[in-house]
Amino acid sequence: MTKRFLQALQGETLNPPPMWLMRQAGRYLPEYREIRSQATNFLHFCYTPDLAVEVTLQPLRRYAFDAAILFSDILVIPDALGQKVEFVSGQGPQLEPIKNEAQLEATLDLSNLHQHLAPVYETVRRLSQEIPDTTALIGFAGAPWTVATYMVEGKGSKNYEDVRSVAYSDPAFFQRLIDMLVESTSMYLIEQVHRGAECLQVFDSWAGVLSEQQFYKWSIEPMARIVERVKAVHPNVPIIGFPRGAGPLYEAYIRETKVDGIGLDHTVPLEWARDVLQPLATVQGTLDNLLLVAGGEQMEREVARILEILGQGPFIFNLGHGIVPQTPPEHVERLCALVRGEA
Amino acid sequence: MTKRFLQALQGETLNPPPMWLMRQAGRYLPEYREIRSQATNFLHFCYTPDLAVEVTLQPLRRYAFDAAILFSDILVIPDALGQKVEFVSGQGPQLEPIKNEAQLEATLDLSNLHQHLAPVYETVRRLSQEIPDTTALIGFAGAPWTVATYMVEGKGSKNYEDVRSVAYSDPAFFQRLIDMLVESTSMYLIEQVHRGAECLQVFDSWAGVLSEQQFYKWSIEPMARIVERVKAVHPNVPIIGFPRGAGPLYEAYIRETKVDGIGLDHTVPLEWARDVLQPLATVQGTLDNLLLVAGGEQMEREVARILEILGQGPFIFNLGHGIVPQTPPEHVERLCALVRGEA
Repeated sequence: MTKRFLQALQGETLNPPPMWLMRQAGRYLPEYREIRSQATNFLHFCYTPDLAVEVTLQPLRRYAFDAAILFSDILVIPDALGQKVEFVSGQGPQLEPIKNEAQLEATLDLSNLHQHLAPVYETVRRLSQEIPDTTALIGFAGAPWTVATYMVEGKGSKNYEDVRSVAYSDPAFFQRLIDMLVESTSMYLIEQVHRGAECLQVFDSWAGVLSEQQFYKWSIEPMARIVERVKAVHPNVPIIGFPRGAGPLYEAYIRETKVDGIGLDHTVPLEWARDVLQPLATVQGTLDNLLLVAGGEQMEREVARILEILGQGPFIFNLGHGIVPQTPPEHVERLCALVRGEA
Repeated sequence: MTKRFLQALQGETLNPPPMWLMRQAGRYLPEYREIRSQATNFLHFCYTPDLAVEVTLQPLRRYAFDAAILFSDILVIPDALGQKVEFVSGQGPQLEPIKNEAQLEATLDLSNLHQHLAPVYETVRRLSQEIPDTTALIGFAGAPWTVATYMVEGKGSKNYEDVRSVAYSDPAFFQRLIDMLVESTSMYLIEQVHRGAECLQVFDSWAGVLSEQQFYKWSIEPMARIVERVKAVHPNVPIIGFPRGAGPLYEAYIRETKVDGIGLDHTVPLEWARDVLQPLATVQGTLDNLLLVAGGEQMEREVARILEILGQGPFIFNLGHGIVPQTPPEHVERLCALVRGEA
């Protein structure tokens, strides 16, 4: 059975391109909100295979996307390492921050990782059996830098000053934290492939705040190590990196991490991506998630422009960032028709 | 009298390069905090020439920078247009948001602009007489997009979703707002040059959140119009644009706005900037403001790298963003020595 999503990641140019949407299982869907309301605790929701499988499958039923992404959260890793993680309704994640090496040593521990994440692995296993034959299953994790921002600041950061400053002022601690995240994230991703994930995406959502030198040290270098370790075990699994906001550094990121695919955010100039990035990797993106909310003529023109410029090479259609809750589901339907040439 | 800062903006390569620091008059200086405590209201502080002149001069006494920048705030423009603007201690600016064309028409009015901004013009006039003969005086304003984010959202935004969505959903209103900001900002900058400003910098601090298409429409296009209008009156005044976070779009920004200088943030890869941007404009930047806080060996190495890569062409040394309050003044002293080769 040929999966178009995987063909694109092998470097094939497909017309129409395969498509999926970041956070496609999410609050914009009424059926998601209904299931979500059954669990008060968001992490518990992620750790309940019955619920996680169901919400992963929901968007496939509506839109027949070419890929499904495991429903989970990037903060399962700090949780599995022993840091206290809570999701407070309306306020986002709250963690007991880890600010120095002593706190790290007292809190984090790799030994229970797989045991703690067993429900996620079970979700992957079930999904690999339940998704349609033409749909690829994507496993994922947060990148070490992005996960570290939450672990150090204790919440979603406003300007990333604290964590960037710690990386400068206590590089030994910060390197130790990143090393632990490289280790745990590699273990986690390798196991997801064992259970049936056919592709992996690593989300470095806050890569764009790093200085050039920090980007090499805290985004590229850890990701290169993760790719190397995963590929040592699973040489054929394609890996997509998404260092959101990397700007001109997307190029170095692809070259040095050796990812197969690269997620592009909505700020990336399309012709530059075509000329500089697409020869190096399959590109994925880049529709502005707020343009999907707006819909209409502006969205139609932009979708046509993306297909025209990036569709001539290896390409996966996606948004430039996750779909937002206020997105009308009928705009997603229209988007699918446009991308598939059924409009 | 030759001003090295202006020579660099005419395309000369200077060794050592001229230097100044964004927000060099600011809370990291004890003498600033003392003066600031004399005024309870921040806008009133900006509108009091005695105080604004004094704080503008303070960093020159310590560090003999090659340029002084008028002490003011980008939100004087909405204030002068009639929008209610307040600075709440610890919370940042608070504005009565303008969300649609009716609110715009009911609130904003260009007719009192110059009268309202007269104290700022007086500050510029006095500064042009009081700064040292070798120091250039920079006037400034916020770019229309960045000022509009505050005007529409009513405060510093977390993710710019509201204002970016309004720009999609009500383009007629948003264009009207931007047009009004192009008009008022041009008037404001032209008058600053009349009063003695020798260079202008336009801060588009939140340009980096725009999609490619929005960046052309809301950052590049308004700035091109401002440059054209200012140069029609003052053909020789150099203008620096600072579309922070523009990434690969820095190139199109320089080409299309025809700025003389370009402010680069700390994410920009230096070799790319040297090869792609420096042939088009004098580059300014790019030291990470948090590395100036950290100081030490890491900062010394990075300053050397910046000088090595960007110092072979037209270049002004600066930070990649404004200096932060926790910066030790002695680190600034050390930075000056490093850039000037006195270390």
